Amino acid sequence: LCWAGICSGIPDPRQRDSLMQQEASRQTGGAMLLTEAEQRLSARLLKLKQQEMAGPQFPPSMHFFRARPLIQRSPIFSLLQGMPKGAALHLHDLSIVGADWLVKNVTYRPHCYICFTATQSVRFVFSARQPSPLPQCSPWKLLEALRAQMNSTADLDNSLLQNLTLFTSDPEVAYPNQDVVWSKFENTFLAALGLLTYAPVFKDYFYRGLQEFYADNVQYLELRALLPEIYELDGAKHDRAWTLKAYQDVARQFVNEHPDFLGARVIYTVHRGINSSELIDVVKEAMRLQKEFPEVMAGFDLVGREDSGKPLWYFREGLSLPAELGVTLPYFFHAGETDWEGTDTDGNLLDALLFNTSRIGHGFALTRHPLAKDLSRKMGVAVEVCPISNQVMQLVADLRNHPAASLMSEGHPLVISSDDPASFGSSGLSYDFYEAFVGLGGMSAHLGTLKELAINSIRYSSLSPQLKDKALALWQRKWDKFISENSQ
Amino acid sequence: LCWAGICSGIPDPRQRDSLMQQEASRQTGGAMLLTEAEQRLSARLLKLKQQEMAGPQFPPSMHFFRARPLIQRSPIFSLLQGMPKGAALHLHDLSIVGADWLVKNVTYRPHCYICFTATQSVRFVFSARQPSPLPQCSPWKLLEALRAQMNSTADLDNSLLQNLTLFTSDPEVAYPNQDVVWSKFENTFLAALGLLTYAPVFKDYFYRGLQEFYADNVQYLELRALLPEIYELDGAKHDRAWTLKAYQDVARQFVNEHPDFLGARVIYTVHRGINSSELIDVVKEAMRLQKEFPEVMAGFDLVGREDSGKPLWYFREGLSLPAELGVTLPYFFHAGETDWEGTDTDGNLLDALLFNTSRIGHGFALTRHPLAKDLSRKMGVAVEVCPISNQVMQLVADLRNHPAASLMSEGHPLVISSDDPASFGSSGLSYDFYEAFVGLGGMSAHLGTLKELAINSIRYSSLSPQLKDKALALWQRKWDKFISENSQ
Ligand SMILES: [Zn+2]
Ligand SMILES: [Zn+2]
Repeated sequence: LCWAGICSGIPDPRQRDSLMQQEASRQTGGAMLLTEAEQRLSARLLKLKQQEMAGPQFPPSMHFFRARPLIQRSPIFSLLQGMPKGAALHLHDLSIVGADWLVKNVTYRPHCYICFTATQSVRFVFSARQPSPLPQCSPWKLLEALRAQMNSTADLDNSLLQNLTLFTSDPEVAYPNQDVVWSKFENTFLAALGLLTYAPVFKDYFYRGLQEFYADNVQYLELRALLPEIYELDGAKHDRAWTLKAYQDVARQFVNEHPDFLGARVIYTVHRGINSSELIDVVKEAMRLQKEFPEVMAGFDLVGREDSGKPLWYFREGLSLPAELGVTLPYFFHAGETDWEGTDTDGNLLDALLFNTSRIGHGFALTRHPLAKDLSRKMGVAVEVCPISNQVMQLVADLRNHPAASLMSEGHPLVISSDDPASFGSSGLSYDFYEAFVGLGGMSAHLGTLKELAINSIRYSSLSPQLKDKALALWQRKWDKFISENSQ
Repeated sequence: LCWAGICSGIPDPRQRDSLMQQEASRQTGGAMLLTEAEQRLSARLLKLKQQEMAGPQFPPSMHFFRARPLIQRSPIFSLLQGMPKGAALHLHDLSIVGADWLVKNVTYRPHCYICFTATQSVRFVFSARQPSPLPQCSPWKLLEALRAQMNSTADLDNSLLQNLTLFTSDPEVAYPNQDVVWSKFENTFLAALGLLTYAPVFKDYFYRGLQEFYADNVQYLELRALLPEIYELDGAKHDRAWTLKAYQDVARQFVNEHPDFLGARVIYTVHRGINSSELIDVVKEAMRLQKEFPEVMAGFDLVGREDSGKPLWYFREGLSLPAELGVTLPYFFHAGETDWEGTDTDGNLLDALLFNTSRIGHGFALTRHPLAKDLSRKMGVAVEVCPISNQVMQLVADLRNHPAASLMSEGHPLVISSDDPASFGSSGLSYDFYEAFVGLGGMSAHLGTLKELAINSIRYSSLSPQLKDKALALWQRKWDKFISENSQ
């Protein structure tokens, strides 16, 4: 019953120190060598963290909707906003820009029509003439005309906002369970879809998204995108290639205007509600797009609630196709976004690895799958951890209990991302970095942790080795500047 | 980036099956060979579990105070009540008997006085004459006289009950945070103390506790006991040796009357609020008691809220004493009962192992300490997992997120126990087994899991190898009977 000399029952303080250091070195960032300036900033961060832990309310243990004002006042959060965070690798196309911009900018554009559904949601469409009616929705009204009839448009705008985000002051009452929160979540996308698929808005929205992440000191994005049909004012429609090209054009333009930004790539996604023969066609299209747009297209994924959809194994015929044809189509599968251990959904983790996924989206259930966990580590398949998303979608209440806290302790390959920041009332990456650093990381996480998380986001991106080197160099310059400005 | 042939992107169904089986074999009970009858019962249990998962409310994801009526109606719970569960290894002396017995039986005994504190709690004492007043408490009243003045005693009895347990219909409102729930928790012990330290009640209470666990098909108990001063009606007081002897006598008597029960042992505990020189004296007394009562005395532990008390390392001088003197005093430390990662409290896990602890109480934080986790596994130091306790004391809300879910997936040495069942409104072990089997275990846990948990409780007990063999043989007979009665 002895191990490494531990059994005498009289601990040797030096051995104890050495074991504590060994353990500390295993965690994310535990093996990072920090400069003296970095050590000073790290010490300052730990002191600030101790103060937040001693306070009457500890934000990571609260629902994000209640914690947000506290986080906004946190000096740690300010530092994290200023920190170059590398890449945001788990984001969805329709939720990267704050919903208030949609209301205050997009819905005020000319030709915007609205209808009201029976379930108290709304749908939008831009059209040169009166659009044809939508089933289960009121007749279309021109928003401009509707607003003109009102004394104050504040109530209307506020109700539109409510339809475009999950954010609310009393989340436990509004969303008593996962079914309700998922249903509202999917409804917000249906509400936004008519706005965002209008060609001019589509490009503006993506540009604005890049701006928001750029302002939050993020250097690069990988966007899971449904590549929906984009329409013009006269009802003309574009195909997926057009949409992908639009992403590429906007990203290029943004990089031209912001040379210290690295751009964005797209992971083409399809809703997991489709059937397996439909998936075969989608994968074929994904292979064509991958070939045609190698610069902007990063790969493929399935989206939608895992617990309600078909498991990856159901789609095995289509998902095996690229490998069978010898075609490269990298996968970035959502997997293990579930509390239901041992179910078919839960099997997605192992299957994602068997289909040679490049990363794992969420991987919330990974700690309950020791073999998949080992594989993920050995194969260098990073987990994309989205703390606020997992909390809002009710996988875990207190973020100190997020399973990625263990993964961080073990130095498992992982990155931090924000999934659908607009839906959750967050923005960029800083809120999720706050939760990861203060909540998941506890007092063990230090500046080395943050540094490795940022580096990981480039290391585990879909960029080519050359572009990774370039990205790392750019990030390092920003990092050095950040350190020198914050380590007095 | 390939591992064991996984990188082609075309999964081989046989390899997939084999990996799934490998993973399944790692979990607690995953390597258990089940007879045909056991497999039938296991299949039945999994079917029942699927039904509970499909229901509108899933008990392990709810607060136990709300889940209890659902659990009581669960056919899985009925089966678990009938299942021989082996030993209860993590229990506290003052909370093993349902609080209603204290109210309905003990407070109705003659000579029972009550006083009311300013904080709306109560204190009791048995006394042949009017007891001298207690600071910060109303004058003592004879309960018999108080009840005689009333038309109905139901309200009084109900309010007494509220003072002796945490159980309440609206836990989120009653206990808004950990500080409040811990304060109430410690108050319930102060309320019960005057009842339970009266010599006749003390023995009856322990006997009754053995009865309750025996009725729940538990074969053996290890009780963390404060060994408080026990008093007689005339105010005479007994020393710790008397108290320990009383435990031994009652346990022997119970075993005589119930030959299919194996008895109980005591882990002497002291509150971690004392200082380090006081701890030295306590450890010395513990060594004396260990020598004098080797049959009933199992070892030593510190109790009380870890986050508020001194860490084990603060007590290192006293805790090193037995090893320095070459005296055997097994430790059974509470450690890692915290959400605060990286704090001094959190260091208790490693220190418990360095002081050669025999088991770890709770170990809630263990998954965030990969080195301590490895040590615990290699040294065969089992974790005593108490799901309901951790939920009620607000370490985790949804028990599917309990970190021991990962430990179970990895087959980490662990046992299930109930900590303070009377405080939580549970009893015996069956409620905690339900949470572990349905909540922590998910669809992966099967009859083999339950079987290994029961065997673990004997394997990791403090019993001698001879007594373990005897215990296992007795348990096996009961198990075989249980299987044959439930596998048609
Ligand atoms: Zn996602
Ligand atoms: Zn305990």
